[in-house]
Order: sequence, then structure tokens, then C-alpha cells
Amino acid sequence: MLLHLASWPEVEAYLERSTGVVVPIGSTEQHGPNGLLGTDALCPEIIAREAGEEADFLVAPTFNVGMAQHHMAFPGSITLRPSTMIAALQDWIASLARAGFTRIYFLNGHGGNVATLQAGFSESYAAWSLRGEACPYRLKAVNWWDLPGVQAVCRELFPVGDGAHATASEVSVTYYGYPQAVKTADMSPKIAPTGSFADAADYRARFPDGRIGSDPAQASPEKGARIVAAAKAALIGEVRKFFGA
Amino acid sequence: MLLHLASWPEVEAYLERSTGVVVPIGSTEQHGPNGLLGTDALCPEIIAREAGEEADFLVAPTFNVGMAQHHMAFPGSITLRPSTMIAALQDWIASLARAGFTRIYFLNGHGGNVATLQAGFSESYAAWSLRGEACPYRLKAVNWWDLPGVQAVCRELFPVGDGAHATASEVSVTYYGYPQAVKTADMSPKIAPTGSFADAADYRARFPDGRIGSDPAQASPEKGARIVAAAKAALIGEVRKFFGA
Amino acid sequence: MLLHLASWPEVEAYLERSTGVVVPIGSTEQHGPNGLLGTDALCPEIIAREAGEEADFLVAPTFNVGMAQHHMAFPGSITLRPSTMIAALQDWIASLARAGFTRIYFLNGHGGNVATLQAGFSESYAAWSLRGEACPYRLKAVNWWDLPGVQAVCRELFPVGDGAHATASEVSVTYYGYPQAVKTADMSPKIAPTGSFADAADYRARFPDGRIGSDPAQASPEKGARIVAAAKAALIGEVRKFFGA
Amino acid sequence: MLLHLASWPEVEAYLERSTGVVVPIGSTEQHGPNGLLGTDALCPEIIAREAGEEADFLVAPTFNVGMAQHHMAFPGSITLRPSTMIAALQDWIASLARAGFTRIYFLNGHGGNVATLQAGFSESYAAWSLRGEACPYRLKAVNWWDLPGVQAVCRELFPVGDGAHATASEVSVTYYGYPQAVKTADMSPKIAPTGSFADAADYRARFPDGRIGSDPAQASPEKGARIVAAAKAALIGEVRKFFGA
Amino acid sequence: MLLHLASWPEVEAYLERSTGVVVPIGSTEQHGPNGLLGTDALCPEIIAREAGEEADFLVAPTFNVGMAQHHMAFPGSITLRPSTMIAALQDWIASLARAGFTRIYFLNGHGGNVATLQAGFSESYAAWSLRGEACPYRLKAVNWWDLPGVQAVCRELFPVGDGAHATASEVSVTYYGYPQAVKTADMSPKIAPTGSFADAADYRARFPDGRIGSDPAQASPEKGARIVAAAKAALIGEVRKFFGA
Amino acid sequence: MLLHLASWPEVEAYLERSTGVVVPIGSTEQHGPNGLLGTDALCPEIIAREAGEEADFLVAPTFNVGMAQHHMAFPGSITLRPSTMIAALQDWIASLARAGFTRIYFLNGHGGNVATLQAGFSESYAAWSLRGEACPYRLKAVNWWDLPGVQAVCRELFPVGDGAHATASEVSVTYYGYPQAVKTADMSPKIAPTGSFADAADYRARFPDGRIGSDPAQASPEKGARIVAAAKAALIGEVRKFFGA
Repeated sequence: MLLHLASWPEVEAYLERSTGVVVPIGSTEQHGPNGLLGTDALCPEIIAREAGEEADFLVAPTFNVGMAQHHMAFPGSITLRPSTMIAALQDWIASLARAGFTRIYFLNGHGGNVATLQAGFSESYAAWSLRGEACPYRLKAVNWWDLPGVQAVCRELFPVGDGAHATASEVSVTYYGYPQAVKTADMSPKIAPTGSFADAADYRARFPDGRIGSDPAQASPEKGARIVAAAKAALIGEVRKFFGA
Repeated sequence: MLLHLASWPEVEAYLERSTGVVVPIGSTEQHGPNGLLGTDALCPEIIAREAGEEADFLVAPTFNVGMAQHHMAFPGSITLRPSTMIAALQDWIASLARAGFTRIYFLNGHGGNVATLQAGFSESYAAWSLRGEACPYRLKAVNWWDLPGVQAVCRELFPVGDGAHATASEVSVTYYGYPQAVKTADMSPKIAPTGSFADAADYRARFPDGRIGSDPAQASPEKGARIVAAAKAALIGEVRKFFGA
Repeated sequence: MLLHLASWPEVEAYLERSTGVVVPIGSTEQHGPNGLLGTDALCPEIIAREAGEEADFLVAPTFNVGMAQHHMAFPGSITLRPSTMIAALQDWIASLARAGFTRIYFLNGHGGNVATLQAGFSESYAAWSLRGEACPYRLKAVNWWDLPGVQAVCRELFPVGDGAHATASEVSVTYYGYPQAVKTADMSPKIAPTGSFADAADYRARFPDGRIGSDPAQASPEKGARIVAAAKAALIGEVRKFFGA
Repeated sequence: MLLHLASWPEVEAYLERSTGVVVPIGSTEQHGPNGLLGTDALCPEIIAREAGEEADFLVAPTFNVGMAQHHMAFPGSITLRPSTMIAALQDWIASLARAGFTRIYFLNGHGGNVATLQAGFSESYAAWSLRGEACPYRLKAVNWWDLPGVQAVCRELFPVGDGAHATASEVSVTYYGYPQAVKTADMSPKIAPTGSFADAADYRARFPDGRIGSDPAQASPEKGARIVAAAKAALIGEVRKFFGA
Repeated sequence: MLLHLASWPEVEAYLERSTGVVVPIGSTEQHGPNGLLGTDALCPEIIAREAGEEADFLVAPTFNVGMAQHHMAFPGSITLRPSTMIAALQDWIASLARAGFTRIYFLNGHGGNVATLQAGFSESYAAWSLRGEACPYRLKAVNWWDLPGVQAVCRELFPVGDGAHATASEVSVTYYGYPQAVKTADMSPKIAPTGSFADAADYRARFPDGRIGSDPAQASPEKGARIVAAAKAALIGEVRKFFGA
Repeated sequence: MLLHLASWPEVEAYLERSTGVVVPIGSTEQHGPNGLLGTDALCPEIIAREAGEEADFLVAPTFNVGMAQHHMAFPGSITLRPSTMIAALQDWIASLARAGFTRIYFLNGHGGNVATLQAGFSESYAAWSLRGEACPYRLKAVNWWDLPGVQAVCRELFPVGDGAHATASEVSVTYYGYPQAVKTADMSPKIAPTGSFADAADYRARFPDGRIGSDPAQASPEKGARIVAAAKAALIGEVRKFFGA
């Protein structure tokens, strides 16, 4: 069940049978010459929606702009500063907790979100910890590519050049979800360089077309379908465990 | 063109022909017994996407959680505090301005956002005004129902009971966009009460099923199609004026 | 009764008979060649004080610096950023609520405050709404020129050139309150241009002497007296309704 | 010259002959059984206005609500949290600096403001210090009772029972400025207890009627006139030195 | 007992016999040609540790970076903005209060911290005062050189040239604590100039080698020992009074 | 060279030969029955100081209170909220960058800091990325136990029961640094339970004596010496690489 397509009485009824919710969270940032700016938001959204439909759990709207400061030298990228993202997470969490949700599972699509997301969880817990009261809810964040079994599929599909940013895997997932948006682009070198980065100027200097370590020309909707199938199954299992915990 | 389905080189190319972008902005909040929690985000998203496709302008991802404190007594509602929303708007605006956008048009779907959105614009301008530098971008927010000609269509379709929240019009727009989510619900009284409100407890006491002044049982996908057609045409005209200003 | 000229036992006694208070709120910003920088604070202050004296309600000190970023290119203007103004409003409201006030009526003198003021109210309510507790107080903001009957007087006095900023009406109100501060100035054109604006540089470029749409040379203390009389009577009625609600 | 009764061209002309401005800053808080809630804002306002008129310097509107957390157990008191007050000071200072003021002199009427005011100055300077740029303006805060010669007059007028809060001196100054607000009240003991305090509950427990160490029944408009005369003369000297520095 | 060298069961046991704690608080900032950058943190740390050992009270870790914006033109200086320092103080205080501490005594080593520290205390109290609840803890800040009897020793040791920053006294205290860090440097003039300052650029222009009014070439470990002995004895007395209050 | 024991001219001279600095960063939080509350701050401090002395690099004062919300149910623990810690990091980084440091290496001693530290780095970079300027400095954070070769030593010393919190390794490091603080305590079970946690109440319920997975009764100063030796050597290599990058 998608929260934004549900009515409040439907959510009220849902809360009778479960107090867990899944929140897809991503980013809007460059994903190389043939990847979509929305990749990191779309991947968890696609996976969560399919899983939620199959397993009857509630999927919140996607937190679609995240921490992407390092991509700001590429047009179309949008970032929250970490302090803003932490504030926004407090409000999302407080709102869901207010309604009675006690298990909030963030399915994350962007490595750059991980630290700020965890900091946001700690900020939320800290309010309870400093007051000396027990927090009534539990928060969890998992990257979709870290769901059990997903990496194996990706490695099988892309033994070479899956990469670290604008990966062949994530581009495939979005192509599966949005086949009308499949793009082709000349990319040179075939496999992008790897390495670390600091701010946006540094990132662009090191990774001129935006990719890190990837050859996303390999991406296809069909491969995306395989990845989504694996991720969906894994997510259902993980979510059931977490909601039941 | 949808920003999140575009690549960064596509946005770079777009910026050669236009430095304007449309941002749908809404809310995730109860919309009565048969309305979708995502109504206020979905309406501007639907309209902006159709208009953007027809008129080749860029549509950003939807700012999908807004200022909905008064709906917090209904499960499924999510709010940002105004201070958080202002911070998030600063980051969206700064990111888009960084890329070279000089005209940012927010198509708004939620009356409760209006004040905070304007405050956010002023916060953004204030940084330039206090430094004594000229701000290179212009910000504009328009509610989709205030686009020229839209109210006339709504009044014609719903001469009675369009209402002020969970309106027959907005529910129709979402039913047009998501026919699979059409819902039926007994609603009594047929037309909801009207009035003002303060916090969430006050709101729920005055409007027990969430509607204000509306009879959204009249909503249908077909009526939504007519509203969207009118809004799309109007938006194209407005946006062209704004981007050219 | 003016709060700042009262003692705390007098306020304690007042709270026995009423838990309502009126807060004049304005701005310190340019008001054209012959208007006072304090116009927007002085107008609601003058009206509220006269009304409070006649009808025995409590008038708080004036919130005298508001959201005036767009006037920063004219010396003497002082602004709060919206985020600061929202924070300050939280503290004023919390302080008054702490003392037992349950109805706080802001009589506003500045159009530029409206959005931030409403955002500030929502910020205050949101704390209660997210905690799931009922807020014990009600907040209301009304522009003095929107009080019932006031516009009619202004239109009668200034059928042409009342304008939108540095209006003949508001300048008259301050001249009535501070006849020693009546000023004359050559203004050309006689009626200032109209239009919208963004940041301070944009404002000054469009409205070189600060006025928008007005011919404030028509202002006089006598005309101000008529406006104040109308506003005072209206305010008393409005406040009684609100305090009794 | 009072800024709020001046026009912007008058301030522009003033800036040709001086880039200094005096800002009265006070508090709205209980001042015992016969003292005005506005005492701490009114005292510097009265002194600054008389001095500004005599010596032709510019006096800004009064920053009339300050840091008064310890008075919150007495109705009518309004406080800013220190963090809010620091934010507001940044905006006042930035606005005045933007207009070209380089010397901003805060005439303070509330001991409880001193720390936060200094912290606010440091916050303002820190922005320049961390950027490695020279700050173009200088900030100064002086309590009116610390102006040269003022304490001598107060001690002469009130050899016993001037006190530390709701002092006979400050009540006299307000009675001089607002003779219509002179109040009488039984106060027991005649001279209030002395000591320190923490939060509002602690303050009220130690000082049940709000006074600290004072016998303000001795206050009179005539005595206030003498204090104001001394303070005015001293302020003029101090301001000239500071503006010329 | 040093908190950071204790285990939590040891602190739990301590809380059975006392709910008071001493927090050394200082700054990391230039202290002239022969003074240590850590002087202001080390002095209260040295004194508090010796006193805590002798009198069995708990000493928290040192708050070692404070408000030093004016020293930023000298390398090695680190500052918190006042707003940051206030936020950090809230967290330290809340944490200690959460554990059951009711008397928190800050032994301060930096004049530039005083205002922000007091503002931080007020911020902490204000939360209780605005809620109308009694705050369960008391906060106190004392500069080590203001402890009873300390100034007399310093004046005796340094009848000339103790100064106001990079004082002979404070440098002596650090030389006593860290004899391996004794430094010699040519300083001209022998006694540094005195005066006030604004931002960092202003400070460096007025005090080119960082000292204010001091001749710290007189400093020695032996003199430091005498100062520490006096301060330790005084601190024990003061802390016993405060913890027992 | 320890920054806090250096003078500013010594730092100025250092900057001629290197623009890199190491900042030990830790936490003040319970470390089980025999571990020190300061463990996480002391470990990186001990290692950095020894390495800095040997290899002549500058070591800043220790950031000694970190993100420890989950330990707040154990007395003596002190936490910063993540938002506060991010603000404090901005100020430390800005101060060091202002002085000319271009490589800032945080040697971290607390797993709970990692996310907030990374978020703080991104906050710092984001300011540059959004302005479109290249950031002149680079930030790096490494946990001391992740330095090359350190884990091998720990595993050799503690093949069983090193654990995840209050580890035998970290307790050993502090015992090496502070042999006077070696403690003994009965701990049951010998090896603490393992698992994850949310807020402080949850943590204490799962890990009643504070340890996670560890048997720190094995700790000794001698074992600590071996770990420190390995970490010191590794740190010198890492820092040289980073400073030279």
C-alpha cells in the first residue's frame, strides 16, 4: 500500500494490523552521461513499491532529495545540507510516530545519505535519551544494494564495471522502472576512474563525466528486472523481521 | 522534461535554451474519507508534468511533504515544521541557482504551504539584500487552482460542494492521474462543515472526517481530466511569461 | 491598558477578567520621501492603543522590526530574516501563554509580515500537533487596513493614489499620531509605479523613491484621524469576538 | 533624530554627517508592585531620545523585549531565549551596517541582557574573524546607570533602598517619562530581600513581589528628571567619543 | 576524582554522596610569544584537578575550545561561535542533569567565555521558565582568577605587568603544570599595550604579538605553584558552599 | 607538537613546513565496569600524541565529548546532539582553515561519532559546493582501530572477547596511558552480550553493565603498550600520506 495513494481511514485500518512503514529515501543528483538524475530516489521507490504491494506493507512517499553536495558541479543536482536533512528527518519521524508507527524502515538509494541518515536517527533518539524516557519507535536504514542476495545478482550481471557511482546496476533498475527514459551516451573511458572526493569542485575534477568506476552502458531494463526481483524478495523478508521485532 | 528522468548532460543542454524550472510542491496529509493522502503533491505534479511535456520545460522532482501541522490528528499525515521547510527551500533554491537556473516557479498544491513558501522566498532574497548584492534569480509560487481559468472549470463541474479541503476538484485530479486509487466512502454530512482552525486537535474536533466544506463523492477521473486540461494550458502560458521575464 | 505601562499585579488582575491580549506588529522600513520609517509599527500601535483604552483590553509592546528584506536598499530600514522572526514569535507567544493568555491577536501593519507571521503561528501550533496535545491558545493576525469598514474610509479619502506601499492612508495615520513628524517632499511621478518585486536591489530598481502606486502627498493628520476612528471601532468589535471565542 | 519618525532621505542625509546610531535596548518584565513592565525598555528610550534631540544623533527604535527568563513567573513578562536574541541582534546589526552605519551604540536598560548582548556582538564579529576580513563596524553596549555620573545622582537621591531590581532610580525615570503611569502599592518588607537566582521558579520563591533589594516607593517623576538630566549629558559625551572613534 | 578516568559505577557511587560536579572551561587561543595556546583551558584544569583530588569532588573533562573570535588572526587559535557554544553547553548540562547532577560549577579560564557562558545558562533555565516548571539544577561560573585570595597572590608576584591577556599569572600556572613547555621569547615592548578590541583584524592591529598589558617574561613554574596553591584552596571552599547550597 | 602546549609563533613556524594537523576526537561515555568514561577520547589522544612527537606533526586539543546518546542511561556519560556536534565541527574546521591548515585529519576513538563526523564534513564542504567555489582544505576521519595493522595486534592479544564496546583493546590503551586508573570489577557474564540498540533506555536494557561483546578484564597496560606502538607507527604513515596528498 502506497501511503500517498491511500486515504487516512485506510492508514488507520493498516495500523490495526501493523505499525511498520517503509520510507524510500534517495537523492537527486547526476548519475553520469546515461543515468537519470533521480536514480537514487527511484531505485528504492521501485523496489519498495513492488515489495509493499506483494507483502501488504505501507510505503511512504519518497524522500527524494538527499545529501548530494559533492555532485553540485553537475547541473540538475539538488542537495540538502546535512543539518537541513537532519531537521527534515526529525519531522518525518515525529509525524509518523505521532500516528502510531513504531517501526520506520528507510530503504536508502544513496551512499551519500548514509552518514546523515544515521546522524538523524541519533538526533531523534537523543531527545528521548536526554529526557530519560524510553523511545517508543525503532528506526532502521538499509541500502537496497546491501539487501541479502542483491550484490550476488549484480556481480553476476556485471562482473566488470558495475562501479561505485552511476553503477550499471542502479541504472538498470531505473531503466526497468522507466523504460521510456533509457539513454545512450558515448562514455570514455569505458570504465570510469575510481577514488575518493571532497567537495563538488574536487569531485568534478576527478570524475569529469560524473561516473565512478562504472560502465553503465551495460545497463538494461531486463537486467534491472532481475535486480528488482532479488531486492524485492529480500526486502520483504527484512521488513517482516523488523516490523515483528 | 522531468528532471529526475533526465541526465545531467540533458539538463546542461536545456540550460542553453532556458534557465527556468518548475517545481511541484505539495503536502502529504489527510484528504477526507475518499481522498488520497498525497493529493496536494500529486495535483501539481500531474499538471506540471503534462504541461512540461507539451511545452518542453523542465519539471523538478516534487517537494512532497509540506506544512501540514493541522492534519496531524489523522494518521498518514506528515508535516515539516515551517522552520524546517524554510531551510529545505533554501537548499533546493541554492542548488538550482548554482546550476544556473534564474527562474524557479513553484506550482503549489496546498494552501497550508503558501505562507511558509513565501517566507522561504524572503529568507532566500534576504541573504542577498543584507549583503547588498543583486539576487540573480526570481522565485514565484502559484497555486494550481489559481491558474487562470481553472476556478471557472471547477465551479462549472461542482457548482455545490467543491469545498475548501479535500475538494471535489483536487480529488478528481488525483483520480484522473491514478484511476486505480479511486475510493468510495460514506460521508456524512454530505457537505462537510466550514470554518477555520488552529492546531491539529482543534482541526479534528471541528472537521471530524477531515473534509472542509466539500462533497468529494462527486469526484471522478473524467472531471479531473477536464481540470487538468485547463490547468495545463494555463500553466504553459504562465510559465512562458515568467521564464521570459 | 498598555502592558508596558502596567505593573505585574495589574496584569494579574486583568487576567481575572480576560485572557486576551493584542500585539501590534509592524516593521521599520522606508516609506517613501515623506513617510516615516516606523510607519508600519506606528499604525497598529496607534490604533491598538486607542482601542485598548476605550474598551479595556491589554495591548502588548509593539513588535517593531519585521520582515523587510525588500527595503534594504533604502537606509534606515531594518529587517529580521523570516527564520529569526519565527523564532522571536515563538518566544513572545510562549511567554504570553505561560502567563495564562489564551487569545493572542496580532494587529499587523506590514504586508511583508503576513507570510512569516502565519508561518510563525504554524510553528507554534506544530509543537503541540506533533506531540499530540491540544494547544491551549489561539493566535490571530489581522492587517489594520483589513478591519471591517476601514478600506471604505480610505477609498473615500483617497479615491486616487492611495497605493500599495507608503500609502496615503498609512502616512496619514502616522501624521495623526505624530503631527510633529509631518514631512513634505517633491515626489515625481505624482503617483508611483506599481508592480511586484523580489530582493532589495530589484525593489529599488523598480521603485526608486520607495513608494508603490501611491501619492502620499495627500496625507494629513485630519485624514489620519478619520481612519483611526474607523479602525479603532472595528478593532474593538473584532477583538471582543476573538477574546470571547 | 528618531529613526522611526524620520524618512529614508533624512537618514541618507544624516549618514553624510555621521555613521553612528544609538539603539535603546531593554526588556519587558515585572518590576515589582509599583514598577512598569516596560521599565527596562523605557529608561534607555527616554534617555536616548532626549540626548539624541539635543545632540542631533540618530536613535533607532527600541529593542523592547530582551532576555528575561527569570521573570517568567510574573504575568506580563516576555522573554527571548538567548539564542533568539542573538539571532535578532545579527539582523539588526546587519541591517544597520548594510545602510552604512559603522558605529552602533546600544544603550541598555536591563542587566539580564548584558551577557546575551555581548555574545551577540561576538557572534557578529566572528563571521568576519573566521572569514579573515576586517569588520567595518564597531559595536558598544553601555547600561544607562553606568554612564559617568549617574550612579552619584542615584545614590544622592536614594541613599537607602535603591536596590538591584525594580530600583527606585529606574522607576523614577519611567515616572518622569510617563507621569500618568505613577502607581502606589503596599510593599512589605519596605526594602526587598537581596540575593541571586536561577530560573523563574527560583526567582519568584526568593523575591515574592519581584523586587530585589529596593524600596521603589521612594520613586517620583521629579527624581526621575534629575537622573535623566545626568544620564542625557553623559550619554551625549560618550556617544560623541564613540562615533568619533 | 576525574570523571574521564572514572568508571560509570564509580560515578554512580559518587552521586550517592554528592550531586555536584566541576567543569573546567577554557579556550584554545594565542597567548602571546611565550604563552601556550591552551593556557585558558589548562589553568582551570590544573586547579580543578588538584582541588578535586584533595577534596574528593568530581571534575568533568575540560570544555577546551571556547569563544575566541578575536584571536583568529593568530594561527593555532580555535573558536566556537557563541551560538554553537550555547548549543554545546545545553548538551553538557542536559547530560549531567540527566545523570542526577544538581550543582554544576564551571571553573572558567577565559574572559571571552563569560558572556556566552552566562547566555548559555539562561538558555538552559529558559526552557524550564517558559514551561513553568522548576529547574532541578543550579549552574555557576567563576573565573579562577576571581577565586577569593588569588588576585592578592598575583599582585604580590607581579606588581607590574601581570596584564589582561597572556598574563604573567596564567602563563605561570601553565608553566607549573607543564614545565616541559616553558618558552622564552623576545617581547617588545616589555609590557604590551592595553585597550579594547572588536573583531580579529582589529585585535591584531592593536596587539601585534597578542599580549594585552602584560609582561609574561616574568612567568615561572614556581610562581605558578603559588598561584595554584591559593586557587586550589579557594576553589575547595567555594565548591563546598555551592554543592551544599 | 601539541597545539595547546605550543605558542602561536611556533604554530606559525610549523605552517611553513606543513599545513596538516591531527585532531583526536572521542567521547565521554560509560565503558563498562572497569573502563574509563574518557576511553574514547583518551585512546586517540594517546596515540596521536606519541605519533606527533615522533614524527613532528601538530596535534590539536582533543574534541572530547561526542555523540553518545545511547549511553545516557549510565551516569557520567555526556553527549552532544548530532546537530550540535556538526555545528561545533564547522567552527573547529573553519578556525583551522582560517589559519592556513589544508589537511585536517581526525583520529577518531568512538564508533558512535562516525556518522555525525562524516555529516559534519559534508556540511563543511557543502558551503563551498553550493557557492561554486573550490574548497581549499581536505578532511579525513579514521578510527584508530582501523589503522593498518592494529586489528591484527588486537586479535592476537585478545583472540576471544575483545568485543564491540568497552573492548579489551581500548581499555588496555587507556590503562597504558593512565596506569593509575587501572580498575578491577566483577563482570558477569564474562563476555557481554552482543547486538544493536536504539536509544539509551534500549541500550541499558540490552547491555545492563554497558559492555557489548567484550571481556575487558583481560585489559592491561602492557597490552595497551603493544597496541599503541602499532597504532602510532600506522598513524605516522597515514598522516604523511594525507598531508602530502
